[in-house]
Amino acid sequence: MTTTNDKTIAALRGRIARGELSHEALIDEVLEAAGQPAAQHVFTRLYADAARAAARHADAARKAGIETAPLAGLPVSVKDLYDVAGETTMAGSAVCEGEAPAAHDATAVARLRAQGAAIVGKTNMTEFAFSGVGINPHYGTPRNPVDTQTARIPGGSSSGAAVSVALGLAVAGLGSDTGGSIRIPAALCGLVGFKSTQSRVPRTGAFELARSLDTVCAMARSVEDCLVADAAIADVPLAVRRRPLQGMRLAVPRTLVFDDIEPAVARAFDRALQALSAAGAQVVDITLAELAEIASVNAPGGFSPVEAAAVHRERFAAKRDGFDARVAARIALGTEVRAADYIAMQDRRRDWIGRVERAIEGFDALVCPTVPIVAPAIEALAEDAAFFRANGLLLRNTFAINLLDGCAFSLPCHAPGDLPVGLMLASVRGGDARLAGVALAAEAALQR
Amino acid sequence: MTTTNDKTIAALRGRIARGELSHEALIDEVLEAAGQPAAQHVFTRLYADAARAAARHADAARKAGIETAPLAGLPVSVKDLYDVAGETTMAGSAVCEGEAPAAHDATAVARLRAQGAAIVGKTNMTEFAFSGVGINPHYGTPRNPVDTQTARIPGGSSSGAAVSVALGLAVAGLGSDTGGSIRIPAALCGLVGFKSTQSRVPRTGAFELARSLDTVCAMARSVEDCLVADAAIADVPLAVRRRPLQGMRLAVPRTLVFDDIEPAVARAFDRALQALSAAGAQVVDITLAELAEIASVNAPGGFSPVEAAAVHRERFAAKRDGFDARVAARIALGTEVRAADYIAMQDRRRDWIGRVERAIEGFDALVCPTVPIVAPAIEALAEDAAFFRANGLLLRNTFAINLLDGCAFSLPCHAPGDLPVGLMLASVRGGDARLAGVALAAEAALQR
Repeated sequence: MTTTNDKTIAALRGRIARGELSHEALIDEVLEAAGQPAAQHVFTRLYADAARAAARHADAARKAGIETAPLAGLPVSVKDLYDVAGETTMAGSAVCEGEAPAAHDATAVARLRAQGAAIVGKTNMTEFAFSGVGINPHYGTPRNPVDTQTARIPGGSSSGAAVSVALGLAVAGLGSDTGGSIRIPAALCGLVGFKSTQSRVPRTGAFELARSLDTVCAMARSVEDCLVADAAIADVPLAVRRRPLQGMRLAVPRTLVFDDIEPAVARAFDRALQALSAAGAQVVDITLAELAEIASVNAPGGFSPVEAAAVHRERFAAKRDGFDARVAARIALGTEVRAADYIAMQDRRRDWIGRVERAIEGFDALVCPTVPIVAPAIEALAEDAAFFRANGLLLRNTFAINLLDGCAFSLPCHAPGDLPVGLMLASVRGGDARLAGVALAAEAALQR
Repeated sequence: MTTTNDKTIAALRGRIARGELSHEALIDEVLEAAGQPAAQHVFTRLYADAARAAARHADAARKAGIETAPLAGLPVSVKDLYDVAGETTMAGSAVCEGEAPAAHDATAVARLRAQGAAIVGKTNMTEFAFSGVGINPHYGTPRNPVDTQTARIPGGSSSGAAVSVALGLAVAGLGSDTGGSIRIPAALCGLVGFKSTQSRVPRTGAFELARSLDTVCAMARSVEDCLVADAAIADVPLAVRRRPLQGMRLAVPRTLVFDDIEPAVARAFDRALQALSAAGAQVVDITLAELAEIASVNAPGGFSPVEAAAVHRERFAAKRDGFDARVAARIALGTEVRAADYIAMQDRRRDWIGRVERAIEGFDALVCPTVPIVAPAIEALAEDAAFFRANGLLLRNTFAINLLDGCAFSLPCHAPGDLPVGLMLASVRGGDARLAGVALAAEAALQR
């Protein structure tokens, strides 16, 4: 299977409509490929029977002349942190073994099923979604398919989600984004990731990492496909106005997001800015000094460690040795933080959001590299120091938008043959529809 | 001035319409009375000029044949914790002296002004709204007007608000209710208090006690008057369906709320239940065992201490000796609580709310004594042990509804000549309009 654009939702539906492919044949092909070495560690569980049944149902509907929902009978993957009725949700961990099974599907899963999507399996992830790298000591680490020579990280925490889409095993990967977990693997694997505004999709049945930030969202092969997945899980499509880049104002923040950038990323980003300018966008450098405050807004402990410490309070006390030690180290940062300091952190965040929103008013989007590095080799992160340095760099730019309670796309912007680089387009809370219009136009400009 | 029903909004507007009284004369009378010994410690500040101007404006409008808003030109009081532009909001404290003045009126204050209400003054309160007793060591304690022999507490924290209404110095007292601060003084002073669902009125410009619970609301002389005040501060009236008690189902919870009840309260409550039954209500005893869990849901520290500790973090570190020692003792309960425990407390609360909501589904309201005791003598609370015991009893029943994120009225239900006793009618989050229908009918039954 390939990662080219013959795997977009529209392309697949076109082939099926023309009788060149059936849903069932497609799902069979996917299930077959899911067992190949390239897909090792991508899925923690496959739903072969249910996926085939959904495919057959879509084929039958098509034959009967019934119009099907956009995702009907197409392969979709679901991150291991979403409840599937009857199963214990593991969230990439070993310590949840033996806990109570979920009584219901997560809302996002139920909505995918309601469209008739063929959910092919649950995808591997960083334990408890708590890192941007994608390494999992319990279930193995899915290998980033972009480099056949060197085993590189897929990025995380939605690691298996990204690889499932990159390998053509899913048209959309339902993941989650708390600090960048959709956008980082999308960037490193050459996909499009869309982190919507947190309130857009209910979190019911999603294993919690950090309640202030957790976002239920997906990645796919194109902006259009991301919008199809988004419409399904949000249960309502965004009202996107398609418009040209001509006249759009894009702000490039010059604080923080270019620190420690790798030359390959800088080159791809500059190339992308030129393409956007050439297509008529007005690209404006802004300081956005507020980005330098993120560390102090997010102290002490940080939202994710503090809120994760609450989630895992009992589990952590009883089974800490069963946690990925790197995840345990981050949760430990939050366990001793006081409630008054946490509440003060929420207040600082609210104030910071207000100031950033005012600073970027009048721009159609912020633009910056999604991550400042290309996918490191898995081997290079064996030592904790290297791992935590990479993790910090991977999460840094994306986290700014989570802290903003905003929305963002990551679009591939590297030259053909290079390692993937993501371009992040971001906006404020609730700016999803407008941002989607920017992303559609930018994607077209970048592909020219 | 008297506390009889010739001071209701409708009665005053009737007298004014018939030319028996002018707004200006009414406000002059109120300002004069506010200087009398009975009103000592009720106001921390008077707005004589502004109140007179509002009164003259209402008189002029009436003469011009312009229909005025229900509160136009009528005396209203505002608790000391609401921002008034240009003044430092003290919230009953001494330690806020010298802090920055408010830039804007609080939303509730601005909405009262928009109706043309004559805001006669800011009312005294428990320091930082942090007790149900109403004693203030900095500004004195307003005396409960119901007993001319013994100086009794007015209840708190909206102590001055209640006495201002009881003395006829305001048709409505804008207060706040975090654990009972509207309903307790209403009950002890023989008034009607309405704690609406927290989300109904914006808290902008209200000095924070506990963000999860703080409710902007008011007390008045009747349910009708409470609804007038509520419509003003919520900027939209409740859609109340007036209906008879006949056929209504009222649940009396038999857990917690009758513990340590004083005989006078038990008598008045039984009398009230008989009146409600006689008017056709179906009164049903229920266990509601969830009420026994409140202490454990609200541990460690408790929402109010933990959230107040965040509000006063810097002030408490720098000026703790300037705090009312009893308030400082309660804030101190919250300072060391961990964020993870606070988040777990929020989760337990959410679960508890769901279970209580299911338990009382199908009832038109819960009914119980607002507080299990009548107003104690101020002198009897000189010792901390007696103070904290009384405070616990005063807040116990009302706090259950704050924890529920619900709504409640307190209606007077004592026999004429007795010390006031409040009957609490309560419902779930957002049940305000339906509950108001119950309260109107119950009030009529109790007055028969």
